[in-house]
Amino acid sequence: MTHDDAPLIWPTGFHAYTGHGGLRESGDDISVIVSDRPASGAAVFTRSLFAGPAVVLSRANARSGQLRAVVTLAQNANVATGRAGEANAAEVVRRVAELAGVPEGDVLIGSTGVIGRPLPMSTIRAHFDAAAKAPFDATPGQVARAMMTTDTRPKTAVRTVGPARIVGVAKGVGMLEPDMATMLAYLVTDASLDAPALDAALRRAVDPTFNSLSVDTDTSTSDTVALLANGAAGPVDPAEFQRALTDLCLDLTLQLARDGEGATKLLRVTVSDARDHAQAKRIAKSVVNSPLVKTAVHGADPNWGRVVMAIGKNTSDTDIDPTRVTVRFGDVPVYPDEPSDLAPLVTMMRRDEVDIAITLGTGTAEATVYGCDLSAGYIRINADYTT
Amino acid sequence: MTHDDAPLIWPTGFHAYTGHGGLRESGDDISVIVSDRPASGAAVFTRSLFAGPAVVLSRANARSGQLRAVVTLAQNANVATGRAGEANAAEVVRRVAELAGVPEGDVLIGSTGVIGRPLPMSTIRAHFDAAAKAPFDATPGQVARAMMTTDTRPKTAVRTVGPARIVGVAKGVGMLEPDMATMLAYLVTDASLDAPALDAALRRAVDPTFNSLSVDTDTSTSDTVALLANGAAGPVDPAEFQRALTDLCLDLTLQLARDGEGATKLLRVTVSDARDHAQAKRIAKSVVNSPLVKTAVHGADPNWGRVVMAIGKNTSDTDIDPTRVTVRFGDVPVYPDEPSDLAPLVTMMRRDEVDIAITLGTGTAEATVYGCDLSAGYIRINADYTT
Repeated sequence: MTHDDAPLIWPTGFHAYTGHGGLRESGDDISVIVSDRPASGAAVFTRSLFAGPAVVLSRANARSGQLRAVVTLAQNANVATGRAGEANAAEVVRRVAELAGVPEGDVLIGSTGVIGRPLPMSTIRAHFDAAAKAPFDATPGQVARAMMTTDTRPKTAVRTVGPARIVGVAKGVGMLEPDMATMLAYLVTDASLDAPALDAALRRAVDPTFNSLSVDTDTSTSDTVALLANGAAGPVDPAEFQRALTDLCLDLTLQLARDGEGATKLLRVTVSDARDHAQAKRIAKSVVNSPLVKTAVHGADPNWGRVVMAIGKNTSDTDIDPTRVTVRFGDVPVYPDEPSDLAPLVTMMRRDEVDIAITLGTGTAEATVYGCDLSAGYIRINADYTT
Repeated sequence: MTHDDAPLIWPTGFHAYTGHGGLRESGDDISVIVSDRPASGAAVFTRSLFAGPAVVLSRANARSGQLRAVVTLAQNANVATGRAGEANAAEVVRRVAELAGVPEGDVLIGSTGVIGRPLPMSTIRAHFDAAAKAPFDATPGQVARAMMTTDTRPKTAVRTVGPARIVGVAKGVGMLEPDMATMLAYLVTDASLDAPALDAALRRAVDPTFNSLSVDTDTSTSDTVALLANGAAGPVDPAEFQRALTDLCLDLTLQLARDGEGATKLLRVTVSDARDHAQAKRIAKSVVNSPLVKTAVHGADPNWGRVVMAIGKNTSDTDIDPTRVTVRFGDVPVYPDEPSDLAPLVTMMRRDEVDIAITLGTGTAEATVYGCDLSAGYIRINADYTT
């Protein structure tokens, strides 16, 4: 379902640059993707009350439906940094516009990392001074790598749509329960679509993918998903484009879930026979986010009762009747009829993908959400992140 | 505030029994507290949709305002166990009524432990057959110990009110975000109060204590807090009783928080200057429940930006203006003015109690909630609980 044999190279007309701006000790931490011709753009952002200046600025720039460049600073979110933080984000956008030769208003900026620390502007300025002569020859893999924080691997995906391609790069590991979007995911295509069509396609693709992902219930202040289309390959079939786009977003979502901080397994929860989509998603998220379900999945512990608990804690869903609910792990039914032998359940839970399927008996709606197990690795990573 | 020099012995007229009913390999796992005379009773229960037969039965019995005995089965929640589970809970209540010589309708039953496994009724029956001759001479500490599952220590508290005493026993470590109540807490007093007064006092005491506690956002299917008053010591001043009762509940709440699964620290979050109490509590719970805040507290990592993130994820609280919010750790202000030196913050975070104080600037309401850090110990305990 998520495979495509197309080579992982930028769509026609897109180029990229990565460099080391001193945000971390070593390795590239600044990346820029740019279209060599005008492009339509659409983007969705975090709804956090503490959205940072990068999100505020990008939201304003995306409004025109025209976007040509995306810059990412990794390791520092530039959030809760006051007026200085706003000025710094604006200065980075200005420098990128100069570097890439595009209007300032066509630049999107993403910042990801620790909250509440000022950007190291002196090393960033020195970097842009030196970058003026640098070639735009970075690959999608190099860009995805330069965007990483505690990610253990770069996330990229590619899909073909008729004569066009869609390429996506993403990052995100913790503080990861996207609300309107996920951490950072940039999708570029040489298909020709106008801004309204692009916006509609992006929103349709985001709900069942990035917005159905949760690693730890913590919503980032910096989430951004953007889609740029420069038309270099000409028009494509809209339905085919939508399918490819949603499929590519799902591919990236699964990569994000599998690389959740400390994760060793993908956890997929499907709720069906629900009153409406919102109820299905709410119950599914309760299960995928339950620390007790996540730790049981981590330990391949056949403690299925925790799934029932996680459904039950939605105390406002009073139309759910416990006697009409069913729960399955993969193809092993566990409730209401407990398996007499737990061995097949343990075997199933030892796999690197665990599927939980729930029917609520309150209607016909359905939702699937994605997450991961909770391991001691999550604690190790997060008990000592800034220091 | 939470100290009382009164000896930890039952109030006049209360007696208790503990024994081994085969629910776990060794150690007492059944406990009964009984009043030797009629007593008024009040109780609050979990609102989980999957509340077990113990809760259903107890809720019915509490309705009369008369309660004389409380039985607890530890290690098995008897939840999601179908009609057999209901019959088993009823049989235990019947046996306890016989054993304690009280009407069946005056018995409350609590069950705590794994969900979805049938009670081992043959060993439980054998236990009650043998118990008929056993003395009711268990101490509050012995009862609290017999109620434990993954608790590392028994939780007890005592307060004096004029001529009367209130004694409380509690258990609860994980699956712990009480909704209408906490895991299991039984409070008995020889003060004389009628059922309506008792009910009002209990509800007032529970909101700022047990209902302000969260270890892991997972709401149990079995939460129960009950208060029995047998009047043996005569009437007391109602205001003084309320103060002592709330104080005793807070004492038990702090014991529960400190003994959260894998916990090494108490985390206390106070939100003030909020629009209303509900907003204050919602924001405080977002912070106390954030895995990223909890892991930072565990590692004494001065990553205060995560508190700002946890406030910001309440995307419906649109009246919160980030520029009017303030955050302190103990007496160290961190937002909006970041401390230039993080050392005092680290020192503060290394203590075994970490206090976070937030002002929202949206009104004058306040709430305090209690929780704990998130450690690798939580993962160890929960990745391998049933097996």
